[in-house]
Amino acid sequence: MRSSAMRDLMAITARPEVISLAGGLPDTSTFPPKSFAAQMTRIAQESAAEALQYGPTEGFEETKDCIVEVMGAEGMLVDPHDVIVTTGGQQAIDLVCKTLVDPGDVVICEAPTYPGAVPVFCSYQAEVVQVECDGEGMRIDDLEQLLGELRTAGRRPKFIYTVPSFQNPAGVTMSLERRRRLVELARLHELLVVEDNPYGLLRYGGEALPPLYQLDGGDFVIYIGTFSKILSPGIRLGWAVAPPPVMEKIVLGKQAADLCTSTLTQYFVREYFAEGRWRQYIDDLVELYRGRRDVMLEALREHFPAAASWTEPDGGLFIWATLPEYIDTGDLLAKALRADVAFVPGQAAYIDERGRNSMRLNFSGVDAGEIREGIRRIGKVIAEQVELYGALTGEPPAQARPVEPGGADVLPFRKTGEAGG
Amino acid sequence: MRSSAMRDLMAITARPEVISLAGGLPDTSTFPPKSFAAQMTRIAQESAAEALQYGPTEGFEETKDCIVEVMGAEGMLVDPHDVIVTTGGQQAIDLVCKTLVDPGDVVICEAPTYPGAVPVFCSYQAEVVQVECDGEGMRIDDLEQLLGELRTAGRRPKFIYTVPSFQNPAGVTMSLERRRRLVELARLHELLVVEDNPYGLLRYGGEALPPLYQLDGGDFVIYIGTFSKILSPGIRLGWAVAPPPVMEKIVLGKQAADLCTSTLTQYFVREYFAEGRWRQYIDDLVELYRGRRDVMLEALREHFPAAASWTEPDGGLFIWATLPEYIDTGDLLAKALRADVAFVPGQAAYIDERGRNSMRLNFSGVDAGEIREGIRRIGKVIAEQVELYGALTGEPPAQARPVEPGGADVLPFRKTGEAGG
Repeated sequence: MRSSAMRDLMAITARPEVISLAGGLPDTSTFPPKSFAAQMTRIAQESAAEALQYGPTEGFEETKDCIVEVMGAEGMLVDPHDVIVTTGGQQAIDLVCKTLVDPGDVVICEAPTYPGAVPVFCSYQAEVVQVECDGEGMRIDDLEQLLGELRTAGRRPKFIYTVPSFQNPAGVTMSLERRRRLVELARLHELLVVEDNPYGLLRYGGEALPPLYQLDGGDFVIYIGTFSKILSPGIRLGWAVAPPPVMEKIVLGKQAADLCTSTLTQYFVREYFAEGRWRQYIDDLVELYRGRRDVMLEALREHFPAAASWTEPDGGLFIWATLPEYIDTGDLLAKALRADVAFVPGQAAYIDERGRNSMRLNFSGVDAGEIREGIRRIGKVIAEQVELYGALTGEPPAQARPVEPGGADVLPFRKTGEAGG
Repeated sequence: MRSSAMRDLMAITARPEVISLAGGLPDTSTFPPKSFAAQMTRIAQESAAEALQYGPTEGFEETKDCIVEVMGAEGMLVDPHDVIVTTGGQQAIDLVCKTLVDPGDVVICEAPTYPGAVPVFCSYQAEVVQVECDGEGMRIDDLEQLLGELRTAGRRPKFIYTVPSFQNPAGVTMSLERRRRLVELARLHELLVVEDNPYGLLRYGGEALPPLYQLDGGDFVIYIGTFSKILSPGIRLGWAVAPPPVMEKIVLGKQAADLCTSTLTQYFVREYFAEGRWRQYIDDLVELYRGRRDVMLEALREHFPAAASWTEPDGGLFIWATLPEYIDTGDLLAKALRADVAFVPGQAAYIDERGRNSMRLNFSGVDAGEIREGIRRIGKVIAEQVELYGALTGEPPAQARPVEPGGADVLPFRKTGEAGG
């Protein structure tokens, strides 16, 4: 499933009768309309002309102050001069690639990786190499081996792209030890790491871990953040943090791309942060999404076959489920859509043919009842496939792989050498 | 002056004591704050959750309906399926280039051309060839000659970029005859024309002319529009219209670039258009800007030396002034900034060294008093240069080129052959 198919999927799932566990949607119905109205009224009364006007390419100082506050909440100390406001986190990925990637350059990312990053890397003609994840995130031992192989081949990757916390799509979180080692490797080899952290503040269990940016101090880590998951994706506000020589080029790229990010939505964020309740709202989201995650995990245990396994994320929006190898989730999706339920087939998270028997499930966008019903419907479609397979091969379904939820061994591993890329 | 210098200029001109005739800013203080507040309150009450959520990559149908209405006001009949909503008109230029331009491709544009387009063309490594403008817009005879030369050289331009109405930066408008010929040429040679039309509805005199899109019917013309100049640039809403095979690629590019355009600002436009007064607001802008244009023309006659000439635009936001050849407007700007006034040096509108003795002057962003004072200050700085030149060379200033405002001979022509590609 490539990005045009992804788009078609999103269009299909807009049908009201479809329960979509496909999108990466936060539940914006939780945002108080009164607060929204109050902020907009204040903007209208005090600064309508400014809010409707062009703004600086880098974004407003006041927006950057909010960003510094958000990053501070995860322990990062940032100089606002190193920050650029972007049109969502997606644009930050695009601008980083525009700035750094020349055709044929190697870009390293996780396997699986954020499905929305793949088309960006490809559009700049990067050669994408994916490093497997397990329950503790990117396999840094595999990464080291890959870096060695690349060095031998005389190739130097442009950057390593990672979503270390509550990864999209796998839901896994990079352990502290691996974070430390990754930052060390970056320094040792003078390699850039692009840390994409949309979900860091959405933790439902376990201890908070320091972002790579904090561990590194920002010398070799380019940081990407967004207001999409802690406030609203409809305002299209994200950001990138980079050292000055890189930032200078990013700003030029931004100017060519869309001149500046919406002044109106930046003013909205400014007013919202001035209200002083943004952390409270995140606390509310955490409570809500924790409940939904638990409901989805329970429904998976109830409705998915013994041959399936899945991750148990400590935060974020996604669970990654792995089915028996004989099930192609691309085909399964067609059947699921006829049963009015949707998910993202795992292949969207790979640049090669891997991921065919996996799927990404979102638990933030719909309520508990829909999650239960959605997982029940998917489980039924899977069960039919399992049964069919048993009938065709004579193998009883019980011989399939037992459930191994959580832990450090949940993803469908392959060696880096097989990555293709 | 290249784009980083442009950005610095915009930062300097943000100083409150500087009268800036540099930006392309509409006067957003004319937009009624009460209308703004009413629309936002309605969104908060009726659709806050939707307004804060992701939207479709192509934009909302309701936004497209507004776009169809705007284009209809200029006589264009558009199928909403051919429309994509973009993050300002700038992103539309970027996406068209991303879709069509491969490194080394020839892109043809006007001389001078929109300063914000140059860095986009360059970022996709296009070979930019500029065709001179005169008082009737792009010289189509020069274009024909160029197309012949390119054909002989076995090269096929990817597209011809033009701002036919009230051009940025020259303020000139392509005549009906040339429009017809350009569309014919496009059809004859199966060439794409990219028509950028941000100002078409801002006409202060003369008869309305059909857009290229209307003359062509959309077969060979890709159309770019924006709400920036008829409503607000701070909402970052523009659009592109293209035939299906091109549009499909543009949509994929858009998805990689920023997923979708702000839902919130699209809802704002929807509510604003539902109010039914958008044409009235444009009428108000036309009246206001016509007055400012006249004030600037009067001030130019009063304060600029006899050796200067300038265009007399029938619409849009800009006047293009040409000074004696010995004046470098890049140097002049430094002196002007010390006198607390700013303009855009002409070189920003060329990919080569041309335009050094010209400048773009904006008359929409500041009030009549500031326009008069701004032109007075620039005139004083020019007069000092003229005097200095006279003292150094012994030539009396009166020997410089006489004023030739308006007409078909106002821009500093050079032959296309000198364009330097």
